[in-house]
Amino acid sequence: MRISPEKINKYTPAQLIVFYYFMAITVSYILLNLPGVYLPGVHVTFIDSLFTAVSAVSVTGLSTISIGGTYTTFGLVMLMLVLQLGGIGIMSLGTFFWLLIKKRIGLRERQLIMVDHNQYSLQGVVHLIQEIIKIIFVIELTGGLILSIYLKQFYATWNEAFLHGMFMAVSATTNAGFDITEASLMPYFGDYFVQTIVMILIVLGAIGFPVLIEVKSFVKRRHDTVRFRFSLFTKITTVTFGILLVFGTVVLYAIESSNAFRGMAWHEKLFTSLFHSVSARSAGLTTFDVTQFTEASDIFISTLMFIGASPSSVGGGIRTTTLAIAILFLINFAKGNDVIHVFKRQIKLVDVFRSYAVIILAGVMVVTALITLLLTEPDVPVVALLFEITSAFGTCGMSLGITSDLSMIGKVILMLLMFIGRVGLISFLYTLGGKENKIAYRYPKERVIIG
Amino acid sequence: MRISPEKINKYTPAQLIVFYYFMAITVSYILLNLPGVYLPGVHVTFIDSLFTAVSAVSVTGLSTISIGGTYTTFGLVMLMLVLQLGGIGIMSLGTFFWLLIKKRIGLRERQLIMVDHNQYSLQGVVHLIQEIIKIIFVIELTGGLILSIYLKQFYATWNEAFLHGMFMAVSATTNAGFDITEASLMPYFGDYFVQTIVMILIVLGAIGFPVLIEVKSFVKRRHDTVRFRFSLFTKITTVTFGILLVFGTVVLYAIESSNAFRGMAWHEKLFTSLFHSVSARSAGLTTFDVTQFTEASDIFISTLMFIGASPSSVGGGIRTTTLAIAILFLINFAKGNDVIHVFKRQIKLVDVFRSYAVIILAGVMVVTALITLLLTEPDVPVVALLFEITSAFGTCGMSLGITSDLSMIGKVILMLLMFIGRVGLISFLYTLGGKENKIAYRYPKERVIIG
Ligand SMILES: [K+]
Ligand SMILES: [K+]
Repeated sequence: MRISPEKINKYTPAQLIVFYYFMAITVSYILLNLPGVYLPGVHVTFIDSLFTAVSAVSVTGLSTISIGGTYTTFGLVMLMLVLQLGGIGIMSLGTFFWLLIKKRIGLRERQLIMVDHNQYSLQGVVHLIQEIIKIIFVIELTGGLILSIYLKQFYATWNEAFLHGMFMAVSATTNAGFDITEASLMPYFGDYFVQTIVMILIVLGAIGFPVLIEVKSFVKRRHDTVRFRFSLFTKITTVTFGILLVFGTVVLYAIESSNAFRGMAWHEKLFTSLFHSVSARSAGLTTFDVTQFTEASDIFISTLMFIGASPSSVGGGIRTTTLAIAILFLINFAKGNDVIHVFKRQIKLVDVFRSYAVIILAGVMVVTALITLLLTEPDVPVVALLFEITSAFGTCGMSLGITSDLSMIGKVILMLLMFIGRVGLISFLYTLGGKENKIAYRYPKERVIIG
Repeated sequence: MRISPEKINKYTPAQLIVFYYFMAITVSYILLNLPGVYLPGVHVTFIDSLFTAVSAVSVTGLSTISIGGTYTTFGLVMLMLVLQLGGIGIMSLGTFFWLLIKKRIGLRERQLIMVDHNQYSLQGVVHLIQEIIKIIFVIELTGGLILSIYLKQFYATWNEAFLHGMFMAVSATTNAGFDITEASLMPYFGDYFVQTIVMILIVLGAIGFPVLIEVKSFVKRRHDTVRFRFSLFTKITTVTFGILLVFGTVVLYAIESSNAFRGMAWHEKLFTSLFHSVSARSAGLTTFDVTQFTEASDIFISTLMFIGASPSSVGGGIRTTTLAIAILFLINFAKGNDVIHVFKRQIKLVDVFRSYAVIILAGVMVVTALITLLLTEPDVPVVALLFEITSAFGTCGMSLGITSDLSMIGKVILMLLMFIGRVGLISFLYTLGGKENKIAYRYPKERVIIG
């Protein structure tokens, strides 16, 4: 089947993103099944192999198999490649795809391209994609080298130290959360250096590409006479991200201080709370056995994972901006304000609508998935299922350890959730719907009693 | 402290509704603690007595004590009085209150008064309240008499049959869900006559007063030359109510057919599914031991209770219209439509906003309550807590049997939820906020990436 430009032109950008992701999963499946990928004697079933491919492309990190016990070094390199494909992919390749078919450039791109002052031009987009790849590689390489040098003390050879350091850096920056230690970052529970580096890498990956590019522009132009203005998007997403990190840390500390953290020193409690608050945004790495958390924390972490990371980042979930706009809307609605002002800008009505649609759809999806999984996995506790569902939708990858026990239907549902979480509900919604539809006639308005 | 009209005038109608409800709880507490109310030798603690008062005024029916084992016949009559105060109260007395202080008549009233073609007049409102009381009393009396005559076969005296019949009718019509049998309607598991009468009474109470009044007008004017037009509100709430009943029945049947309902005849499965689907709207009466349901059904029933009944009815929750508008919004958003049309009418933007605010706030409330209760009630399973929380918020009153085991904090949280559920989140939200706030200046608009 040849795809001609005319044929592509019939689809919406959102449909093309979904299509791209299907392709990426296929490529990922093939890369992870090349000869020499598996360790000798290891056999992985089709569904588990597909699950790993979906999990890797969506940089979720949930896994039904043991990564370290399954892949050769060549296999791990392939896995890292797939993580890049997933992490950087949707944003940059999606943009490129749109430009190729000469569609009107979408909202996300315009937002980004504005930063480069090359609005709507091909050079602007190509430059943008180069920027994204460059920034991510610089972050991964820097982090990987620092970690490798530091980790040398624990390993016999530089090869081993380098493999572990680079894998950790890629896994953190792309927020994939895969590990080859069989125990995530638990061996580094007391190692605040590793934890700090990893947290920085996670945040850089999850904060959103536009933020990174704007910060780079800001630094570059700091001596210009005209002051660089950060976009509203960057301000909202960064502030929300920061508030969520602090809020998550405080609540986890408060809940677990005299429960799961009992007997720890205050700095251990603080770092464990902070690390899992950061990780719940979308990375899914852990320094502590999360099955030790109380159910209250499990539900709390589930809501954090449901929220997820910034849009145009390596993360999933409903996204930080969706939450921010919902809260801003609620405050302004309660005050009776007729417009939403924030950072001396006005929020557009259509963005309030988008946040509403995303939240409703995500909520319905999670509840439906939970009821279905309760039926297909009768032996798994409900909290573990909710945790797994929100972890998949938030492409976070934390788990209470039930992933490999799931039934076939359970695995398929989680794959769907990872896919939707990564692509984003807005794209997914538009895929179902289609183009804007101006209705020509108007019926009279009539009020309805609400709530 | 005397309350002068000038002083009252400073408050919003929503604040007055909340104030009225505080008053009603106080009166209810006093009525349920009059001499002769308790059976000899029974002692009820302050918190349990307050809990019963809140539960009765909000017609929820959750109870930390055994009703039949606590109250004398006089006490049961007092309880029925409180149920009327709660069920009919907020709507009719609220309206009356507003008129007394000569405020501009609110949306709900206008909606109702339009039906009487006496817009904005004192006579119209007084007539309206008389109508509400008359209709409810006629329904309760008719239902009570039918049930009493039928129940005579099970009791020695007419007095007993009458007490049980009337209590059942009042409990069903006001959707209170209290019972004096110690086992809700489980003794009538196979009695489809009692179940059918009770279901009809429940629906009449939960469908909303405007619907009853419009149907009455429709019947009265069926021979007029000008065709009676049902309001958009009536159409939306009735259709949503009907769809929810059918949907609830089908899903419960599907989930439990080979689980909790295993071994039953098909008509028993059908009636049990139907009855609990009807009851989950807001009544909370049960014909089957709900602790036998699977966790999947528990979560499903929790969502049904979270949705609740019609606005301006005896029920709680986010309300049927909120759900309907959320779904209509989602469909139209996905289609890209720029207006929401339904039943040849246009939905106003402000009603879409209201539904958004109610859903977000309700969701946050339920999750916060769940995390808090998980900490205060470490021995209660999470599903039982979620069930109890949504049951309180939906003023439904079904329970997995944990109400009396709750801690003091747990009981207080449930009282708050019942209160908010009954008053309605919109009223509650406006109580926090205040009047409409036209912002004079406008910042430039800027888009934000969502979801
Ligand atoms: K992840
Ligand atoms: K009830």
